[in-house]
Amino acid sequence: MIRVTVWNEFVHERQHEEIRELYPDGIHACIAAGLEELDSGQELEIRTATLDQPEHGLTDEVLGSTDVLLWWGHCAHDQVGDAVVEKVVHRVHQGMGLLVLHSGHFSKPFKRLMGTPCALKWREAGERERLWVVNPGHPIAQGIGRCIELPHTEMYGEPFSIPEPEEQVFISWFEGGEVFRSGNCWHRGNGRIFYFRPGHETYPIYHNPEIRRVLHNAVRYLAPNTWWSDITSAPNVPRDQAPEPLK
Amino acid sequence: MIRVTVWNEFVHERQHEEIRELYPDGIHACIAAGLEELDSGQELEIRTATLDQPEHGLTDEVLGSTDVLLWWGHCAHDQVGDAVVEKVVHRVHQGMGLLVLHSGHFSKPFKRLMGTPCALKWREAGERERLWVVNPGHPIAQGIGRCIELPHTEMYGEPFSIPEPEEQVFISWFEGGEVFRSGNCWHRGNGRIFYFRPGHETYPIYHNPEIRRVLHNAVRYLAPNTWWSDITSAPNVPRDQAPEPLK
Amino acid sequence: MIRVTVWNEFVHERQHEEIRELYPDGIHACIAAGLEELDSGQELEIRTATLDQPEHGLTDEVLGSTDVLLWWGHCAHDQVGDAVVEKVVHRVHQGMGLLVLHSGHFSKPFKRLMGTPCALKWREAGERERLWVVNPGHPIAQGIGRCIELPHTEMYGEPFSIPEPEEQVFISWFEGGEVFRSGNCWHRGNGRIFYFRPGHETYPIYHNPEIRRVLHNAVRYLAPNTWWSDITSAPNVPRDQAPEPLK
Amino acid sequence: MIRVTVWNEFVHERQHEEIRELYPDGIHACIAAGLEELDSGQELEIRTATLDQPEHGLTDEVLGSTDVLLWWGHCAHDQVGDAVVEKVVHRVHQGMGLLVLHSGHFSKPFKRLMGTPCALKWREAGERERLWVVNPGHPIAQGIGRCIELPHTEMYGEPFSIPEPEEQVFISWFEGGEVFRSGNCWHRGNGRIFYFRPGHETYPIYHNPEIRRVLHNAVRYLAPNTWWSDITSAPNVPRDQAPEPLK
Repeated sequence: MIRVTVWNEFVHERQHEEIRELYPDGIHACIAAGLEELDSGQELEIRTATLDQPEHGLTDEVLGSTDVLLWWGHCAHDQVGDAVVEKVVHRVHQGMGLLVLHSGHFSKPFKRLMGTPCALKWREAGERERLWVVNPGHPIAQGIGRCIELPHTEMYGEPFSIPEPEEQVFISWFEGGEVFRSGNCWHRGNGRIFYFRPGHETYPIYHNPEIRRVLHNAVRYLAPNTWWSDITSAPNVPRDQAPEPLK
Repeated sequence: MIRVTVWNEFVHERQHEEIRELYPDGIHACIAAGLEELDSGQELEIRTATLDQPEHGLTDEVLGSTDVLLWWGHCAHDQVGDAVVEKVVHRVHQGMGLLVLHSGHFSKPFKRLMGTPCALKWREAGERERLWVVNPGHPIAQGIGRCIELPHTEMYGEPFSIPEPEEQVFISWFEGGEVFRSGNCWHRGNGRIFYFRPGHETYPIYHNPEIRRVLHNAVRYLAPNTWWSDITSAPNVPRDQAPEPLK
Repeated sequence: MIRVTVWNEFVHERQHEEIRELYPDGIHACIAAGLEELDSGQELEIRTATLDQPEHGLTDEVLGSTDVLLWWGHCAHDQVGDAVVEKVVHRVHQGMGLLVLHSGHFSKPFKRLMGTPCALKWREAGERERLWVVNPGHPIAQGIGRCIELPHTEMYGEPFSIPEPEEQVFISWFEGGEVFRSGNCWHRGNGRIFYFRPGHETYPIYHNPEIRRVLHNAVRYLAPNTWWSDITSAPNVPRDQAPEPLK
Repeated sequence: MIRVTVWNEFVHERQHEEIRELYPDGIHACIAAGLEELDSGQELEIRTATLDQPEHGLTDEVLGSTDVLLWWGHCAHDQVGDAVVEKVVHRVHQGMGLLVLHSGHFSKPFKRLMGTPCALKWREAGERERLWVVNPGHPIAQGIGRCIELPHTEMYGEPFSIPEPEEQVFISWFEGGEVFRSGNCWHRGNGRIFYFRPGHETYPIYHNPEIRRVLHNAVRYLAPNTWWSDITSAPNVPRDQAPEPLK
């Protein structure tokens, strides 16, 4: 059983009528429904959490029972408390998978784990995007053809100031002429991280069956095999417990 | 002083009138002229070599005095002798830089060093290409703006079956809708390798000032700091020469 | 079901009495027995192949039904036919996992996939080795404590001329004063490769329960999720099939 | 000219007589003298900064004119102000090299850039360490033989919870039986980072000629080729400035 928590700042959906129409119960609810839909093997145990809840819904109990965390944020990154961010980061180090979505590139946990600015350029013009699979053998690309075509998206363009990805799954082509590294994997400590670009709030991205397939694949890929619980410990090894006797 | 050898199979230019018009003395001569042109600091010592020469122009003496080798090949990959390939590969392991150009993705030395098929898809339609700089701080991107625009090129599309690049410098956008990892760096042994996509023989790519800038930057980047001459040796360390005394 | 083939050159065991005593049916049989022993979930289907068989036991039928190949070789690397090597390499590109054992660092398939000399230094003095787990969260390290201690081994020392590992699992300490990167992971195409150092023929390494545990973990880790069958294809995309209409 | 700033918390040397004897003017002064000593080409412009100075000696003016920063800290990591840390990190992103020394593994800038705990285990027993060169072609290893031997050091042992190094230069062997990844390179943004293990305050490590050679090599290796000044900017590209016209 993979225990999944879908986190969303849940602000736009309450402020803008047209976004509420796309995501009446919030982006998190739509993502959760998409995961549920594909969970034919009943492997997933899914819940959601939002910014406005106590501790943003990410209490020790919730984080302590989360295997994979999805993160959607955009206009309220700075309202996420640093203590919660540190707990998220610590849980990733121990093994929790983190799936960072779209404008989450500027979220505190992602920047904190990458160690870089994670900046990019952008344009809102409802243009066409094509996400090409650059690694057809990767678990996250299973069930996807040569590319995913999205008729209307926000554009993100290079340079994307991230550490060189350990594995790349998708690179995007945009109608307006740009490219972007859209699906990238890293490890940090014992946790896996996947950044996935699409997901702008003004388009029905999370209703798209191929996007849902990628999210479902990613959750399974990110699920930890094991936990490295004491990853922050820095124990002293006393002289008389050295593996080789020391004089 | 950086000792540069520009290798070219030099076949198309002798068979096709329109290619000869673009490259009357061969692609190698044009590339060499481009490097010369930018060598205001007189750092480079440039010569050329071609398939039809004895040992393809890559004798022990030539390879032994080459710091950076450029490789252009397309229709005659299989005419390159395996013994020469092994010598090139060995020299890369010791420290020689290798700049693989365009259709050289299928050359024997490149496939041998990558360990993968290096396949891709392609289209000849004279379409527009835009090479985006994804790492503006990289030495190879110096003097280049946000992107290089080529009005007419052959298209190369993903998936490109290479090992994950250690550093990426360029990703291409194509008018026809594809993307491609166009500028990628790897190490093999003590040598650096840079693959650079543009360069189709039917377009005046190597006359383009920005392409020439990239080649010049790349040659300087690939030049070895030092040589690891005995990289293939596998010496026995006798028991009595162990750093720690063994009983 | 993971279909495993254990390949062994099977020469030493027939030439040296003391090695035959350790491995009466060959190293391959001992490794196969070790995998069997731990296969409580009955996930593995194990067979063996040896150098002296037709096509070294690696016919198209055998390779075509192998998910993970283990490779032990030492004194007969150059007797392995190049055509078989290319088939092994091609199968790895498509997705087959490859577990390279001990002196297999100089085997043709491993060098071919790494693209580097894979040289190292060595000493036969029966000294103590301690393989430290540098990544306790890695699937290959599960069930292993902080380190594996081997009372008597052949020493392998740095520099080991391999490409920088994508993931490291073990680094060895030797009584005589050297260190070695003993457990390293790479991808080549769609296949995973794990090199694991211990395994000298004159010591009962493959009878050791912790070594058997590592091999069992590695086989499960290397098993492909999926196959990239057409990884070598380089298709033309005709102009009129470009994703975006071209004039 | 490479502008170097050697930063030191400068606490132990003022509190412990035996440490003051080794480093009467502080570890920073000894390191600076070591760099000076090897600067026969007069490439370096060296200054120092310490915790007790205003802004820890790292004012905008100082950081803005630093190409490579060395960082030694141990018992006062948490006294380094977060604002200064962010400025250091930002300068690294733009291109400044960072050389993290010994117990600096737990410094704020290093942990912030790595995104991982950077924990390790340790022992103070004055034991022997041997730093093996695993990449003899690396610029940082030039002028060093097969290994550096230190007669008395503090031990650091694996697992070291860092991201997988992009390049490794040294791995340590310890008399007491452990190993450690002692010299590792990463990029973060446009800046290079090198972590170098030796340097415990109770031993005369920074007086050792080989250690001084490594530091000098590292400073030259870390010096930026170029600056990526606007790495944090996330510009909007208006619709009418898209490279391709959008309807």
